[in-house]
Amino acid sequence: MSRNELPFRPDVARLAGYVPGEQPRESGWVKLNTNENPYPPSPGVVAALKQAAEGRLNLYPDPLGVEFCRVAGEALGVDPEWILPGNGSDEILTILMRTFVDAGQRIAYPYPSYVLYETLAEIQGAVVDRIPLTDDWSWPVDDARQRLQGCRLLLVPNPNSPSGNRFPDEDLKAIVPDGGVLVLDEAYGDFVDVPHRGELLHAAECQRRMVLTRTLSKSYSLAGLRLGYGVAHPDLVAGMRKVKDSYNCDTLSLAAATAALGDADWMIENTRKIRATRQRLVDGLVDRGFDVVPSQANFVWATHPDGEHDRRFELLKQQRVLVRFMVFAAEEPRRDGLRITVGTDDQIDRLFEALDGIGS
Amino acid sequence: MSRNELPFRPDVARLAGYVPGEQPRESGWVKLNTNENPYPPSPGVVAALKQAAEGRLNLYPDPLGVEFCRVAGEALGVDPEWILPGNGSDEILTILMRTFVDAGQRIAYPYPSYVLYETLAEIQGAVVDRIPLTDDWSWPVDDARQRLQGCRLLLVPNPNSPSGNRFPDEDLKAIVPDGGVLVLDEAYGDFVDVPHRGELLHAAECQRRMVLTRTLSKSYSLAGLRLGYGVAHPDLVAGMRKVKDSYNCDTLSLAAATAALGDADWMIENTRKIRATRQRLVDGLVDRGFDVVPSQANFVWATHPDGEHDRRFELLKQQRVLVRFMVFAAEEPRRDGLRITVGTDDQIDRLFEALDGIGS
Repeated sequence: MSRNELPFRPDVARLAGYVPGEQPRESGWVKLNTNENPYPPSPGVVAALKQAAEGRLNLYPDPLGVEFCRVAGEALGVDPEWILPGNGSDEILTILMRTFVDAGQRIAYPYPSYVLYETLAEIQGAVVDRIPLTDDWSWPVDDARQRLQGCRLLLVPNPNSPSGNRFPDEDLKAIVPDGGVLVLDEAYGDFVDVPHRGELLHAAECQRRMVLTRTLSKSYSLAGLRLGYGVAHPDLVAGMRKVKDSYNCDTLSLAAATAALGDADWMIENTRKIRATRQRLVDGLVDRGFDVVPSQANFVWATHPDGEHDRRFELLKQQRVLVRFMVFAAEEPRRDGLRITVGTDDQIDRLFEALDGIGS
Repeated sequence: MSRNELPFRPDVARLAGYVPGEQPRESGWVKLNTNENPYPPSPGVVAALKQAAEGRLNLYPDPLGVEFCRVAGEALGVDPEWILPGNGSDEILTILMRTFVDAGQRIAYPYPSYVLYETLAEIQGAVVDRIPLTDDWSWPVDDARQRLQGCRLLLVPNPNSPSGNRFPDEDLKAIVPDGGVLVLDEAYGDFVDVPHRGELLHAAECQRRMVLTRTLSKSYSLAGLRLGYGVAHPDLVAGMRKVKDSYNCDTLSLAAATAALGDADWMIENTRKIRATRQRLVDGLVDRGFDVVPSQANFVWATHPDGEHDRRFELLKQQRVLVRFMVFAAEEPRRDGLRITVGTDDQIDRLFEALDGIGS
């Protein structure tokens, strides 16, 4: 190899890389582009962080996060060894790829949904099978089942992003891959009208074949903290644990996350407010001529019959209202639209003003 | 695949997994087993953490850690784009494997040294070539050069662990692999008598062929925080950035790490104390009949002519003095011994008492 050549793996050299939503550093933006929670975390979290900051940061964290696992397990009615804490649920997804998927093997995910899965698969050298969702964003269970044979991971956001709809348990049970693992990415799971209590984890079809991923970024208002977790049969967790870095979660995040789960009422009250604002957002968008998918998440997917989503995105941005313009072009028909996070009522009013200012 | 079979990758299924040093949760231990710094971090770090705890944790962190990169770059005389922050330098090592090494390709590392490299390589499906160090822990440059051709990563802790010796720059320049990258793992780089100022980064032999890894865990007393970083030519950093998770460092760690690097005097004073105690530790061990390798790190490698290291480890542990008993059995001759972290003077006195209690 010549000294001028860079010794990257070919998979990495050709990778475009995942582009997260913009994070403007200055204030003054109405930020409705990355599904953050507009409300602050529980005061208990802030107190736990201050206490941990005074503590023994010169020592390594608990490598297994035992106390966090206990609290997280209780919330779902599973033993602590069902829980794998990670540096955001993104890290859990990375660990899943590295634990279950060899180069050349196949993963699948519904399309359109969270395209990060594709980036992670490409890094791993895996083959990606996009399962097209129907026009109303539902899962074509009978068509898909055949295609899922032999896939190592099937990754399904539930509720889905960018659409916000939730897939029924019966559909999910029907698509557990024979030779792989169904990953239900529940980043938005706390925003649904009737949250589950972990029933699917114990369904016969899913035993040792399903991993839930969860995060404190959205419903617990802790995107800045990076704490997510996987929930799975301990036999699966044991393998994933071998792949994770020894100290993948730091002392502060573990303390804060434990405090956050310990104050579920705070989270429930915030998600209640967000669900109420979600309805206002939907109504206001429909009034302004948009089509909106019924959402069980903290965002909505809005399209306009005139198709001018990119133009609206830019005009909103000029008014310092940031939403997410998304294009899914990998399948026919190409879909694009605006994914809009449910902020506070005031933020949504600012969005409406801005839309009215550009003649919707 | 039968439903009873677990769908792990074969590389993962056969992996034993890396076992980090014990982390007893209760207090009362003299903990000299995982090379933690016995002194607390700078008061500026605690202040930065408290301020960040009151800040907007509901928002995602800066995905690139721009402010941290600026400060870290300044310390080494490189531009910010030479810096890649990570969730501990362990994560940087993981990113290196995933960026540069395909399944079946070869990595190399000196043996005995940091066996985590081997675990990370096995997860990646890579082949590991151990380059045996000589009896005095030096690098057999002429013998090794041939073996390093075609290796994708050569990982070298400098100072080395468990021995604490430092390899000369001239040796390091001579072993940069033609078709790969030399990784200098400088976890203990701030404990050397004369720290470098990044000269090797600019040496012709190393251009776009070397990555330094550093951590705030040891010299900056922040093992609980998980903040390490890579330093490399921006062309290498660009590829590694594609592999990392978008938000791999959280808001609190970035703020604390930036504050820590901003108070280098605090770190320098602590490392000065540790170097002084290191000399006391060496002298006391030699007085008690041990052989000790001259160390440039915050630990020493001690062996006893009678070879009874395991027994001493257990007897010390019974007295709540925890050191690290290590066995390197992969090459002939098998080496074992005790790796002892340099604690405070009081902790070292406790160690000496305990050793005297067991008749050394």
